[in-house]
Amino acid sequence: MQNFADVVSFRYANETDLSTLISLLYDDDLGSAFQRIQASPDNYIILAEAEEEIVGMLQLTLLPGLTHSGSLRGQIEGVRVKKGFRAKGIGRKLFQFAIASAERAGCNIIQLTTDRKRPDALAFYTSLGFKDSHLGMKLLLERPEPTGGKPQ
Amino acid sequence: MQNFADVVSFRYANETDLSTLISLLYDDDLGSAFQRIQASPDNYIILAEAEEEIVGMLQLTLLPGLTHSGSLRGQIEGVRVKKGFRAKGIGRKLFQFAIASAERAGCNIIQLTTDRKRPDALAFYTSLGFKDSHLGMKLLLERPEPTGGKPQ
Repeated sequence: MQNFADVVSFRYANETDLSTLISLLYDDDLGSAFQRIQASPDNYIILAEAEEEIVGMLQLTLLPGLTHSGSLRGQIEGVRVKKGFRAKGIGRKLFQFAIASAERAGCNIIQLTTDRKRPDALAFYTSLGFKDSHLGMKLLLERPEPTGGKPQ
Repeated sequence: MQNFADVVSFRYANETDLSTLISLLYDDDLGSAFQRIQASPDNYIILAEAEEEIVGMLQLTLLPGLTHSGSLRGQIEGVRVKKGFRAKGIGRKLFQFAIASAERAGCNIIQLTTDRKRPDALAFYTSLGFKDSHLGMKLLLERPEPTGGKPQ
């Protein structure tokens, strides 16, 4: 195998991928979150596979909005490439797949936030054409008992 | 009326609010976007009303995720306060309502991006407890014909 990025392929996740996703994320409390994502028409987990192994993932969420003439935004979260498979071009191809998916869904903007402490990630996203025109602000909440219901 | 912020109240938008929302947004191509938002269990337009007039709005989107033990994020977009009603504390109360809604829905983080060119907005969000720990990156896409379908 001369170049790993040439043999990687991409597809949407399904239920049978969960155990592998868990090991990518190093977590084990994800079943209900995954069901919710899979049940949503606006949420997609996109996987990178190479030689039948899942080597990367990201989440694409479609955000319908009233601003900018009723824009549709693509929000990217949860980007991961498996250790040992980084710096091989997989992340770039994963993003190209996600960007093309968002375009076909009708998005006119893709957005994400990246930690200030990760200049490597900033350089990566800039190389993909992202502009750091905004500040990404986070407010941590006390986590209540999840209800999963409509916020009243 | 001594203090406008004391008489403002908050509620979820419904179809009958659309014409007023349009005038808030100065746009008129929003019907389908609004229908999509109203049909989504994860998207809410929150309105500020005072004396039966809509004076502000924002959109809250619940983002289920696999990271951080299956976190639920609240994403804020489309914040508007009507001209003539700004700097009266309405935006702060609107955010307090949105934050409480997100907490009840089970969110453990609320996030938004704010334009670097708006130091007033940065100061406002900072005063609400938001930290600008991240950079907000945007990639503008050529807008295709919207299909509204699943990204293939």
